[in-house]
Amino acid sequence: RSTPRGAASFDVHATPAVTVHMIHSPATKPTVDSRWPLDPDIEVMVTIDVTSRTVDDNQVKISYYDREGRELAVAWLYLTCVEVSLDVDWSRSGRVKSKGKDKAKWTWGPDGQGAVLLVNCDRDSPGAGGTDSGQADVRTPADLQDMSVMLLRTQGPSAIFTEYRVVLHVPESDADKVRVFHAVRGDTHPLYKPVLGPDKLSYVLDNAGHGDSTFYVEGLAFPDRGFSGLVSFSASLLEVPHKDSPGTPIFTDTVVFRVAPWIMTPNTQQPLEVFVCSIKQGSDSNEAFLEGLRALLRKANCKLTVCSEQDTRSDRWIQDELEFGYVEGPHKTFPVVFDSPRNRGLKDFAFKKILGPDFGYVTREPPGNSVTSLDSFGNLDVSPPVTVRGKEYPLGRILIGSPLPWASGRRMCKAVRDFLFAQTVQAPLEVYSEWLSVGHVDEFLTFVPALDRKGFRLLLASPNACYKLFKEKQQQGHGEATQFIG
Amino acid sequence: RSTPRGAASFDVHATPAVTVHMIHSPATKPTVDSRWPLDPDIEVMVTIDVTSRTVDDNQVKISYYDREGRELAVAWLYLTCVEVSLDVDWSRSGRVKSKGKDKAKWTWGPDGQGAVLLVNCDRDSPGAGGTDSGQADVRTPADLQDMSVMLLRTQGPSAIFTEYRVVLHVPESDADKVRVFHAVRGDTHPLYKPVLGPDKLSYVLDNAGHGDSTFYVEGLAFPDRGFSGLVSFSASLLEVPHKDSPGTPIFTDTVVFRVAPWIMTPNTQQPLEVFVCSIKQGSDSNEAFLEGLRALLRKANCKLTVCSEQDTRSDRWIQDELEFGYVEGPHKTFPVVFDSPRNRGLKDFAFKKILGPDFGYVTREPPGNSVTSLDSFGNLDVSPPVTVRGKEYPLGRILIGSPLPWASGRRMCKAVRDFLFAQTVQAPLEVYSEWLSVGHVDEFLTFVPALDRKGFRLLLASPNACYKLFKEKQQQGHGEATQFIG
Repeated sequence: RSTPRGAASFDVHATPAVTVHMIHSPATKPTVDSRWPLDPDIEVMVTIDVTSRTVDDNQVKISYYDREGRELAVAWLYLTCVEVSLDVDWSRSGRVKSKGKDKAKWTWGPDGQGAVLLVNCDRDSPGAGGTDSGQADVRTPADLQDMSVMLLRTQGPSAIFTEYRVVLHVPESDADKVRVFHAVRGDTHPLYKPVLGPDKLSYVLDNAGHGDSTFYVEGLAFPDRGFSGLVSFSASLLEVPHKDSPGTPIFTDTVVFRVAPWIMTPNTQQPLEVFVCSIKQGSDSNEAFLEGLRALLRKANCKLTVCSEQDTRSDRWIQDELEFGYVEGPHKTFPVVFDSPRNRGLKDFAFKKILGPDFGYVTREPPGNSVTSLDSFGNLDVSPPVTVRGKEYPLGRILIGSPLPWASGRRMCKAVRDFLFAQTVQAPLEVYSEWLSVGHVDEFLTFVPALDRKGFRLLLASPNACYKLFKEKQQQGHGEATQFIG
Repeated sequence: RSTPRGAASFDVHATPAVTVHMIHSPATKPTVDSRWPLDPDIEVMVTIDVTSRTVDDNQVKISYYDREGRELAVAWLYLTCVEVSLDVDWSRSGRVKSKGKDKAKWTWGPDGQGAVLLVNCDRDSPGAGGTDSGQADVRTPADLQDMSVMLLRTQGPSAIFTEYRVVLHVPESDADKVRVFHAVRGDTHPLYKPVLGPDKLSYVLDNAGHGDSTFYVEGLAFPDRGFSGLVSFSASLLEVPHKDSPGTPIFTDTVVFRVAPWIMTPNTQQPLEVFVCSIKQGSDSNEAFLEGLRALLRKANCKLTVCSEQDTRSDRWIQDELEFGYVEGPHKTFPVVFDSPRNRGLKDFAFKKILGPDFGYVTREPPGNSVTSLDSFGNLDVSPPVTVRGKEYPLGRILIGSPLPWASGRRMCKAVRDFLFAQTVQAPLEVYSEWLSVGHVDEFLTFVPALDRKGFRLLLASPNACYKLFKEKQQQGHGEATQFIG
């Protein structure tokens, strides 16, 4: 269209930073003086690898020639090169890496790629009522350690950013799962401005073109039914011809995070701290049991935390009220207690006494809060690492006690089961426990460390053997003997 | 364990229906008289292909011999062969087929396998308040046509079923998505007993062993966020040693259905019936428009249904209130109207006037029912079949008008978008429409049939060209001209 009448050939020259690519069929060749025939099959592509210092500092000159080789006309192309790149720790090294490939791809495993986000479910912030994720500001630098860093690099002459805008944005479907803080210079110390999150889908970068802007990203929600755990962020360069224009995207860079699942720890691992409830009053005192446990843990060199009757409101079944696990990212790992909807005396214990700096908290409750004994976390266990029919479960598999599939009966509530299944890495397995009066999976199975074979044994209780033993003891005249005190 | 002391070899004989398989290493061979050494590597497997007529009518005899070849002892194995098979139309032929392979597998496409279930969202039942899926009984044989047949075959001597029970069951997670009716003989005509569904997880088959039991299965819910559409049913043979035993599963057969998605029809297809609202009163009457439409549809030989002002409560924007689509299974196909949460004068129109025999109804509403103009179904369209970067969409792709991804603004509600995305077969695409005052995707694009190339054209409105045209007409002195009456 823009070729002058009578033109037969052309050549292309450009300033040094520009690379000119001629795309043509093998048969088409330039003349000795590097001129190309005006052939519709020829495409000219230009690329630049150096960020511009001023607007239009790169030029491409196209000259047109007639059949006799006389220059007929010249076309100029002015180019400004800007860099816009959104980067995260996609290689899971603990540091943000630029130049990632397929930055919007996320894959599992040690050879996988894609950044990890933690649910900021601990309470680093002094004076906060609940978890850090519940508040839209950063109150302590310690809280930043739980977040994933995201860098937005923008390089280019400032003048260009009057007509072009850089916007960081999050899809509406992900916005209620995350919060993003922009680290900006304050008068005395850095400020962390909340810029994306629930109901905040986009953020226009002030002062674009001046290098790296640092963002901190926190997760607000664990994977669950309807939420895979994947969230994405994009940085777009928008052309904004006038102030009220919504902007036309010129370039978009997208990164993806996965919210780290809550992971349970099998009891074949070395214990770090044992929580036990002390019941002193009444005939039901557990002083004797506590004494035995104290002696054992001294031997095992393990910390013991005794929960007072006041804190536990005389509820001794701490194994049923909470389950310890953790979340892990390349940048941070911390334990997270999962609070059962069982809610007896220990209802508020985990929230009040365990949630704290670098100790997270999560809970799930059924609507209406109608629970059964199978909602207690004695009914929730995890195996050591196993391989099932060739499929590896390097973190083991969660075990839930349930009724038989075809029986209606007491069952762990859907809210908790949905949560457990959605974590995916410890693919839960339901086993039949509802035949028991209490109905917990830990009443008849447990895993113990072993030195050989798989490194563990599954101990299965035999009600039959126990019944025989009791019968035998009864016949030996011990029918009235006390089994255990405390 | 059961081999007699001094035994060195054995042989196996069985009644004719039994096949005896010897599993051994190539080196191990029987003696000339068909006796086998008592080698722990040898396994004996027996199979039967003929259903037993009486209990224990098959026998396997194992004789043990000492080194001198003298028979030391004999062990007898008594076998009863029963057949338990759950079958559906897994090949999508319109008929139930037995002997399916991988019956619990479901795959898409013309070469795929797995049965299909329809949401029983029409109203065949006279006097029913809503859709047929809303009632737990079958009131008319016509309603059975919308359901998928599932056969449970049980063959074997009746006596065996005093100690063994056949149970049909559905996973708790699927139970609220389906209802199953058992066709049983009534006094005068067949009865359809509701046997599985919400809160009914299992059904013990009376009278097992007498051949095929026929079940009718209806879907209650379309795929949606958190529900892929897959549901499974299992038939289990349980050993029940005593009346109160919960039963031990001996054998389980599982089949899987997918609830058919709601599918939209592109307007490149031949219209069957056109719905239009008549507005007679006031200056806003659409009589002239109706007259033109009538003439056009006479030419096109298409049925026209004029909705009265009373039925539409003077709301003429029927294109915005409802969207026609259909559900399809090998056994049945029927149209389904999707009712928008827009809910102006036409709020109850689809439910009252369109829902009926073989015309289904579905709706989705946001919590609190706060809608914007983008919730109108003029903002919902579908393309003809397309191929995008090598991926085929044989049913086209749904088009939804949205704000720019980084803009907060009016947006089609999540309940409707979740529903549309969950149907999966017409993978929705969001296009920018929110820049318009009304904001509907159908304000600037439509598809028309074409004889060449892809068989259609996408017509895109050009606000620019229109603006120029208006300017031109204004300059020609037509600035005050009326554009359109009616």
